Amino acid sequence: MYRIGIDLGGTNIKVGLVDEEQKIVQEEFTPTRAERPAEEVIADIAKVVSDVLKDQKIGFDQVSGVGIGCPGMIDAKNGTVPYSNNLAWEQVPFVDLLKKYLQQECVVRISNDANCAALGEAKAGAAKGVDNVVLLTLGTGVGGGVIIDGKIFEGAHAGGAELGHTSLIYGGEMCTCGRSGCVETYVSATALIRDAARAAKENPGSQMNRLMEENDGQMNGKIPFDAMQQGDETATAVVNYYFDYLAEAIANFVNLFRPDIVLLSGGICNQGSNLTDPVNERLKKLCFGGEKSLIPPVRCATLGNSAGILGAANLIDA
Amino acid sequence: MYRIGIDLGGTNIKVGLVDEEQKIVQEEFTPTRAERPAEEVIADIAKVVSDVLKDQKIGFDQVSGVGIGCPGMIDAKNGTVPYSNNLAWEQVPFVDLLKKYLQQECVVRISNDANCAALGEAKAGAAKGVDNVVLLTLGTGVGGGVIIDGKIFEGAHAGGAELGHTSLIYGGEMCTCGRSGCVETYVSATALIRDAARAAKENPGSQMNRLMEENDGQMNGKIPFDAMQQGDETATAVVNYYFDYLAEAIANFVNLFRPDIVLLSGGICNQGSNLTDPVNERLKKLCFGGEKSLIPPVRCATLGNSAGILGAANLIDA
Repeated sequence: MYRIGIDLGGTNIKVGLVDEEQKIVQEEFTPTRAERPAEEVIADIAKVVSDVLKDQKIGFDQVSGVGIGCPGMIDAKNGTVPYSNNLAWEQVPFVDLLKKYLQQECVVRISNDANCAALGEAKAGAAKGVDNVVLLTLGTGVGGGVIIDGKIFEGAHAGGAELGHTSLIYGGEMCTCGRSGCVETYVSATALIRDAARAAKENPGSQMNRLMEENDGQMNGKIPFDAMQQGDETATAVVNYYFDYLAEAIANFVNLFRPDIVLLSGGICNQGSNLTDPVNERLKKLCFGGEKSLIPPVRCATLGNSAGILGAANLIDA
Repeated sequence: MYRIGIDLGGTNIKVGLVDEEQKIVQEEFTPTRAERPAEEVIADIAKVVSDVLKDQKIGFDQVSGVGIGCPGMIDAKNGTVPYSNNLAWEQVPFVDLLKKYLQQECVVRISNDANCAALGEAKAGAAKGVDNVVLLTLGTGVGGGVIIDGKIFEGAHAGGAELGHTSLIYGGEMCTCGRSGCVETYVSATALIRDAARAAKENPGSQMNRLMEENDGQMNGKIPFDAMQQGDETATAVVNYYFDYLAEAIANFVNLFRPDIVLLSGGICNQGSNLTDPVNERLKKLCFGGEKSLIPPVRCATLGNSAGILGAANLIDA
């Protein structure tokens, strides 16, 4: 049997047909155009699903279900989207609508996109075969996905497992969620770029500032690491603070979920062991119970942009 | 059928016989004397269990199992205590030992004491009939228990659900766990007493300082609330900071577990709605998704010292 995995984002709808070996047989996308009513977006999803099946000459009887990873607050139990900032949606009965547009009897399930990324890595990526996984997506914000006993843990109701929206430094940097000092405001790529740009401006003679100026005055998530490798003290300080924040946030999630492994994803993972080695080293001193407890390794995710489709497909049993 | 619930603490072992109506039919205790080898403590537990059953003229065939709430890091899956600071235990195969000393075929289960308190409140106390509960015990430290779908959520391995050992203010007050700025260091009764004593000394003319001096120079968790009610500005500031910290910590756990209700326990709960009203008010502005999400009410636990026995008994199905 095949499964359909859908990675619904603010820019594109990505649809993949996934086989029993966790391979994406065909992948198609269409622009989301999120300014439209939710019904139109969902009708487009149904159309792409239908096109992919036609291309592959596969009938709906060979599909065990359709899974969707969606940004925002998702009510997985009821199959609805109470609120999605990226899509400007409120109270969208997603599963019921998609079933209507598919015009087929079909299992349809939905979860948060970061949850799906974690599930994808646990079933087909860096944590393949591992039952208990915490994944942090380090991007514009910080998404979090928790897998316990091979299943997504979302808390009891919509709006749980929001790992990025827990305190790191109460009273600190303002967060998009309305609070201040959330993990997201210190551990996201956005946060690293903010702190690096500030430090570069305060230290105009630093190599990090020179690299920023050579990049049309724009900081990015790679420059601080590059400058650090060139021996720049300003960059080294910024990156070490980032490692401290990240290890501290991960220790919180270890003390709550005690997984077998912690995965990181996002562009910053291009740093590989330059990122994970110092974080693993710091983590040893931070977990409750110390050496008497299971301290999970921190590694980089491996599925990249495919994690969303594969995770969504795995909302449906293979 | 009856169940035995055991509340094992650093000072006393409390054993209760619990009936199907969640009533404690008989309760006995004996000193823990934790300086002894674990085997002797466990043998004593078995003896008290046996004594209670004899007293009640109840045979082991009328007991569906024995549950234990134990301080420290508990491996509930394997029935062991990898580490308990209060008992000075390491790697104690608790369930196997107790089964041996009971000399009876019997279901024996163990969990962390705060987990048991949460389960007790969910089955027989302030959250009776509620499936999804977060409980914080505000004492010397901060214990945390999470109930999801009527069952204790402990994370994947021993050392999860340690709610008190997650960040509130990274780099803040030193925590007993070795990190700094944990929830425990701002939200425990110990933390309130520390902050109140500091503020009283810094403001010798305050009513809070007068009340502390009248109490032989000792601060406690009641004085700040008393002084606040008498209009003392110093006390009001301390208590309001405490409310801020507590609401912020609760918002973290709402964003992770999204329970139906949050319970608080410990001596500080004698303040009742003087504690919960301001915390509930603050919480409205802090939860991810705001009004679009389920914001659980914060209430005080009601079982008091019985929560441990009742929770432990409920590790066994009624």
